[in-house]
Amino acid sequence: MPTVDRWLLPDGIDEVLPAEAARIEAARRQLLDLFSCWGYDLVITPHIEYLESLLTGAGHDLELQTFKMTDQLSGRMLGLRADITPQVARIDAHTLGAEGPSRLCYCGSVLHTRPRPLSTARSLIQLGAELYGDASSTSDIEIISLMLETLTSCEVDGIHLDIGHVGIYRGLVQAAGVDEVTERALFDALQRKAGDEVAELTAGLEQSSLAAMLCSLVELSGGVEVLDRAHALLDGAPESVMAALDDLAEIAQILARRYPQIPLYFDLGELRGYHYHTGVVFAAFVPGVGQSVAQGGRYDDIGGDFGRARPATGFSTDLRFLVQRGRVGLGQTLSAIWAPHSSEAGLHEQIAQLRRQGERVIMALPGQSSAEATDFGCDRVLGFNAGSWSVTALNS
Amino acid sequence: MPTVDRWLLPDGIDEVLPAEAARIEAARRQLLDLFSCWGYDLVITPHIEYLESLLTGAGHDLELQTFKMTDQLSGRMLGLRADITPQVARIDAHTLGAEGPSRLCYCGSVLHTRPRPLSTARSLIQLGAELYGDASSTSDIEIISLMLETLTSCEVDGIHLDIGHVGIYRGLVQAAGVDEVTERALFDALQRKAGDEVAELTAGLEQSSLAAMLCSLVELSGGVEVLDRAHALLDGAPESVMAALDDLAEIAQILARRYPQIPLYFDLGELRGYHYHTGVVFAAFVPGVGQSVAQGGRYDDIGGDFGRARPATGFSTDLRFLVQRGRVGLGQTLSAIWAPHSSEAGLHEQIAQLRRQGERVIMALPGQSSAEATDFGCDRVLGFNAGSWSVTALNS
Repeated sequence: MPTVDRWLLPDGIDEVLPAEAARIEAARRQLLDLFSCWGYDLVITPHIEYLESLLTGAGHDLELQTFKMTDQLSGRMLGLRADITPQVARIDAHTLGAEGPSRLCYCGSVLHTRPRPLSTARSLIQLGAELYGDASSTSDIEIISLMLETLTSCEVDGIHLDIGHVGIYRGLVQAAGVDEVTERALFDALQRKAGDEVAELTAGLEQSSLAAMLCSLVELSGGVEVLDRAHALLDGAPESVMAALDDLAEIAQILARRYPQIPLYFDLGELRGYHYHTGVVFAAFVPGVGQSVAQGGRYDDIGGDFGRARPATGFSTDLRFLVQRGRVGLGQTLSAIWAPHSSEAGLHEQIAQLRRQGERVIMALPGQSSAEATDFGCDRVLGFNAGSWSVTALNS
Repeated sequence: MPTVDRWLLPDGIDEVLPAEAARIEAARRQLLDLFSCWGYDLVITPHIEYLESLLTGAGHDLELQTFKMTDQLSGRMLGLRADITPQVARIDAHTLGAEGPSRLCYCGSVLHTRPRPLSTARSLIQLGAELYGDASSTSDIEIISLMLETLTSCEVDGIHLDIGHVGIYRGLVQAAGVDEVTERALFDALQRKAGDEVAELTAGLEQSSLAAMLCSLVELSGGVEVLDRAHALLDGAPESVMAALDDLAEIAQILARRYPQIPLYFDLGELRGYHYHTGVVFAAFVPGVGQSVAQGGRYDDIGGDFGRARPATGFSTDLRFLVQRGRVGLGQTLSAIWAPHSSEAGLHEQIAQLRRQGERVIMALPGQSSAEATDFGCDRVLGFNAGSWSVTALNS
């Protein structure tokens, strides 16, 4: 590799320079403080683990997205985490083992072997919160609310919220006794909103009412009125489907009251994360960005692989993406004091005292003069005037 | 893998639970704020990179410590960073390309294929600061001072500082024209303070004065008086050796004045990081711990591989280890308010207002009563009393 190319980074892998890093750090603190105010405790999960543990409860997609390497010590295969959610589920299920509900949050880097659709990044700063131990929609509402507060706190404009519920499709196909191959094809067709294909795939079903319901999912998307239409079209559906609709109605009502400024959009054919989600699924979007800026849902069984299945709901986002899309931390300017290079008695103590007061003090190095102070972001200078050290404004 | 074992973590890889995570987060903020007060700007470097870039300027040790994997997109070999220092050097040398001195800091996870000597951990939270562009000992003193302030800030007790200078040994072997094989053997013997072996290896040298000087390095360790002894024993050594001694004397004098409570220990045969360091090397120790708690040194040529060799000096530490050894963040207790599960009008607004004031408010989930409040760390409860919402102490 020629010397000149050593600074090249792999595609989708970035370094973050001071201006952006300061904003990310500011947003990180603000959001972890927000989570703490909501009762969520920070945990730090490992960057690498045995591959089986990392992929627990997750779909095939995650396996393909996970970098793999061999552990010299054990000879076993390790994975570089591509998603922190399963790790936090393990902490809840196994390590903490709390009886009642538990609230955990995290912030850390994840890496993907390939960029996700509509993205070029392979390195994300995943930030999220999880609520375990309660199966009611109260928890879903808390998590969705916290996700919206997260986006608002980062001053991300123009958010709208997409809500679905995988229990509706799942309840219908189970009741209809659809075989696995057809279910996969149906799932695929629904995601593409290919009504013709859905009709064709369900044409042979024994119960034509269920076939009609499955077909209706393609069109059950839009504002809150979709839920009324769904109640009519899915009348007579299995109980689990009607319960899912009731959950959605409750969530819609409370969110509309709490966050009247955020448009809600329902899509009953949307099956984001169908393979591991078990209930409500949701995602926040902003205009002009194809991928969601934050997303989550209910995934009640994930802890089972670690010996304890608990109800679970949570959301996650990419902190760096939030900072790029929002205005968080944009206003902050560091003011600083330039200190001369001198062995004068008392200078060191002066500088130490200013720093203890929270001031940023930049010490000149040999050969540097105060003429360079502004290049280093200084607006004041420490000098020895009239027998004592004092700070004066630059150019004054 | 049996279900019951899925929670097993690889040796030396840990998860961090809420109590410790809160302390690490507190220490992280405190130290990044300290670095900022000293003029150091945060950068965030990638967790994975092309292997050649990661290993630039570093020794063979780092290559063995680096996890490797294949990049699907490029087909090239990637490494999982085992040290952040070379990455920051690249940012200084290539990306930022500042003319004058630059000060950068970082905090992030690093992983090692095998634990380092005297340690079991393979996952560290590396935190450090680097000063580029100035070759004078003023920079070394600033970096050592910042390292000591870092340890003090984390309330790590009983620190003592070990200082050496690789320029002394390097200057002597170069002047003596020692061949590569002998130099390696000599280096090895010196590290073990094996005086007999050093004498044997230098017996055949043309200049017996240089041989005597190399032999004296074994014994040149102890308090500041070592520097005077060194001046006598190394009299007539090459100029670079005498300059190194002068640097050490200046550093000793200033540190002793600024940090009189921290014992200084000099070891001129200590060659920590000899393969990439070029000047002063230093490490802080605490009683009862074999490995250093923080360490660093000068490594002037590291940027050269990225197209721009600049003077460089810096230090790093393991944040988690500091938190375990120090008392930082131990005092913090979160007080919290328990809020009932209720759809009562006004409750949500009350909670939102308390959280905006920085209060931690935990909302009861269906089925939970305020009897559980203390289990969740609450010392107060939000209730509807006499026609309005108010916060009262628990058990009152």
